[in-house]
Amino acid sequence: MRDHNLGVVLRSVADGEGVSRAEVAAATGLTKATVSSLVDELTRHGLIVEAGPAGNSVGRPGQALRLNPDGPVGVGVEINVDYLACCVLDLSGRPRHQAVSLADNRGRPTAEVLAEAADLVDTALDGARSAGLPVAGVVAAVPGLVRTSEGLLASAPNLGWTQVPLVAELTRRGWPPVSVENEANLAALGELWFGAPPRTDFIHVSGEIGIGAGVVVGGELFRGRNGFAGELGHVTVRPEGPVCGCGARGCLEAIAGQEAILRAAGLPPRTGTTLATPAGPLARLVERAEAGDERAVDAVEAAGEALGVALAGMVNLFDLDAVLLGGMFALLAPWLREPVEAELSARVLGARWTEPRVEVSRLGWEAAVRGAAGSVINRIVQHPADHMRRTA
Amino acid sequence: MRDHNLGVVLRSVADGEGVSRAEVAAATGLTKATVSSLVDELTRHGLIVEAGPAGNSVGRPGQALRLNPDGPVGVGVEINVDYLACCVLDLSGRPRHQAVSLADNRGRPTAEVLAEAADLVDTALDGARSAGLPVAGVVAAVPGLVRTSEGLLASAPNLGWTQVPLVAELTRRGWPPVSVENEANLAALGELWFGAPPRTDFIHVSGEIGIGAGVVVGGELFRGRNGFAGELGHVTVRPEGPVCGCGARGCLEAIAGQEAILRAAGLPPRTGTTLATPAGPLARLVERAEAGDERAVDAVEAAGEALGVALAGMVNLFDLDAVLLGGMFALLAPWLREPVEAELSARVLGARWTEPRVEVSRLGWEAAVRGAAGSVINRIVQHPADHMRRTA
Repeated sequence: MRDHNLGVVLRSVADGEGVSRAEVAAATGLTKATVSSLVDELTRHGLIVEAGPAGNSVGRPGQALRLNPDGPVGVGVEINVDYLACCVLDLSGRPRHQAVSLADNRGRPTAEVLAEAADLVDTALDGARSAGLPVAGVVAAVPGLVRTSEGLLASAPNLGWTQVPLVAELTRRGWPPVSVENEANLAALGELWFGAPPRTDFIHVSGEIGIGAGVVVGGELFRGRNGFAGELGHVTVRPEGPVCGCGARGCLEAIAGQEAILRAAGLPPRTGTTLATPAGPLARLVERAEAGDERAVDAVEAAGEALGVALAGMVNLFDLDAVLLGGMFALLAPWLREPVEAELSARVLGARWTEPRVEVSRLGWEAAVRGAAGSVINRIVQHPADHMRRTA
Repeated sequence: MRDHNLGVVLRSVADGEGVSRAEVAAATGLTKATVSSLVDELTRHGLIVEAGPAGNSVGRPGQALRLNPDGPVGVGVEINVDYLACCVLDLSGRPRHQAVSLADNRGRPTAEVLAEAADLVDTALDGARSAGLPVAGVVAAVPGLVRTSEGLLASAPNLGWTQVPLVAELTRRGWPPVSVENEANLAALGELWFGAPPRTDFIHVSGEIGIGAGVVVGGELFRGRNGFAGELGHVTVRPEGPVCGCGARGCLEAIAGQEAILRAAGLPPRTGTTLATPAGPLARLVERAEAGDERAVDAVEAAGEALGVALAGMVNLFDLDAVLLGGMFALLAPWLREPVEAELSARVLGARWTEPRVEVSRLGWEAAVRGAAGSVINRIVQHPADHMRRTA
């Protein structure tokens, strides 16, 4: 019961900016004495701090409580097909460090890519240590099927990796606990926790070299039986279509993935890096589309139609009315959005009653790595007692 | 708290055949005095009965407790495209009455179809009354988008019905409360509650004139935001395929729905009724396929391929590994199953790790109407205190 109430109080502090003990008591239904004792314990463990007089109190103002900005932090690391990224978030979700490293990871030995990712994490851990921030954990985001409980990346078709014991191979001596999760799932969580405006029910589409989706229902990630849910990239759009990296025909990814779009636009798909860096092929595609280049615009619009067909199926099945375009699709939204909306409106049976809304994620490619670091923080905020026992 | 514990005790009696008060106390962690008082209250309200000495007790045997077979019953009524059905289930889920009426409801005025359905319910209510069984409620299953909270059938493309205030139009004076729900959702619940072997995570496909699916995750129906989830029939299989009743192109239903299969098999699709009655076109299709008629077999196999493509997308998105073929698809399973399995195995990204299992529902077309009546019973078993207040 005390374990449970520690979480109730911590989340009440997290939700209300600078609340007093009395306000926490009023919001949670706990007695003031209980709240005070729990607040003391959370303070002693460095999860909350007193930060001057509370603003909204009547009478003698109490101390304003906040999540400790110098409390435990979470590290997220993303290993994607054409970049690596790392970030550190503090308890309140504020970024304290961010790094990205562009590279085509498809031709490289797994060990080399993992070593580079581990270096990014090491830099982040060193930075946190110098700043006196304890690191509670590391979560790795990867583009493939993940068995989280085994720390295993079962398959990442676009990297050509199978059965990589990722947690074991990534972890270095002295690191905090590492876990691994699918990047599309983490991107959806990133959007849930850090996206604007706040949403609790949506489909987030991650468009990178591969295409994935994360489904959030009632503020919870829909993971499925094995954590494999949301594999939108491998939904069939044309049963006799082009062969996909997964071996099947006509998957969305084979038609509207980054390489397929670049090829259709007449741009070489594999020259260097993406993320719309000035040198990347995606930046050139955007540039051409902005200049009105017909082939570029047609390529993006055709991808939008295929994406719309697959998303319409997804909306028919999940009955969620908000679709967020993330990653590469956020960049291409000016040309992509209209065909996506047209297909949804033609193909979603319930569209006449609740027209699906298509919106653009503001987090873009950062969603997954933020979601990864955020998972560490979220675990503490949901179960502070466990965290306190681990660090005692 | 007492309301909650009434449910705990009732479900404990429902789960254990003929348990004693002492066994209920042991299973629930409640004191024997509390259990006895709650059992007395549930007995007084006719939800449980004592039925001789309990078998498993040590020492002096207590009285065995059972759900009252003469307690409240639920009525389910299904209004489908080519049949109407009605059933009465008692508290333990045992059928007490069942009726089906075959008719092509597409050409008929809505009021006429509803009047016939109301007659079926009236017969069921009369029967229950004569047997001294109090009726707790009526749930109607309909093949379309339903706004349950408004009692509204928003759209049933295959019946050509839109915006039918179904609860208001169906209800007759003196009836118990009526509610309405999508038939594919109810069929999945029917499978959850009455299917064998028991399952808690699966996709149930309802193949009738239309195609729908119900998704059960962790023993709960996945309804989506508006209760529209699982619209498998309107997932696109071929973006430029035949026009569907919903207006879109290449929906699964337009390719693998009953009419499409019959047409492909060279059988007239609209002559009379289905349910594999001797006179129905589905029975003739099965007969021809059994005789090895190539056109019939090809038609069913092609439907199986399309169903497999759509289901593979669904499994990629929901990550559920059990697919149950229901309704018409249960009848056609001997020819349908293999192509469905082949597409799943080729197109589900996680198939190598958890191969989806395709099974045949034993409930067939009865799943939805059983699920409808079962919803009434389930509401009582989940919230007995509410039921007791309503009937006090």
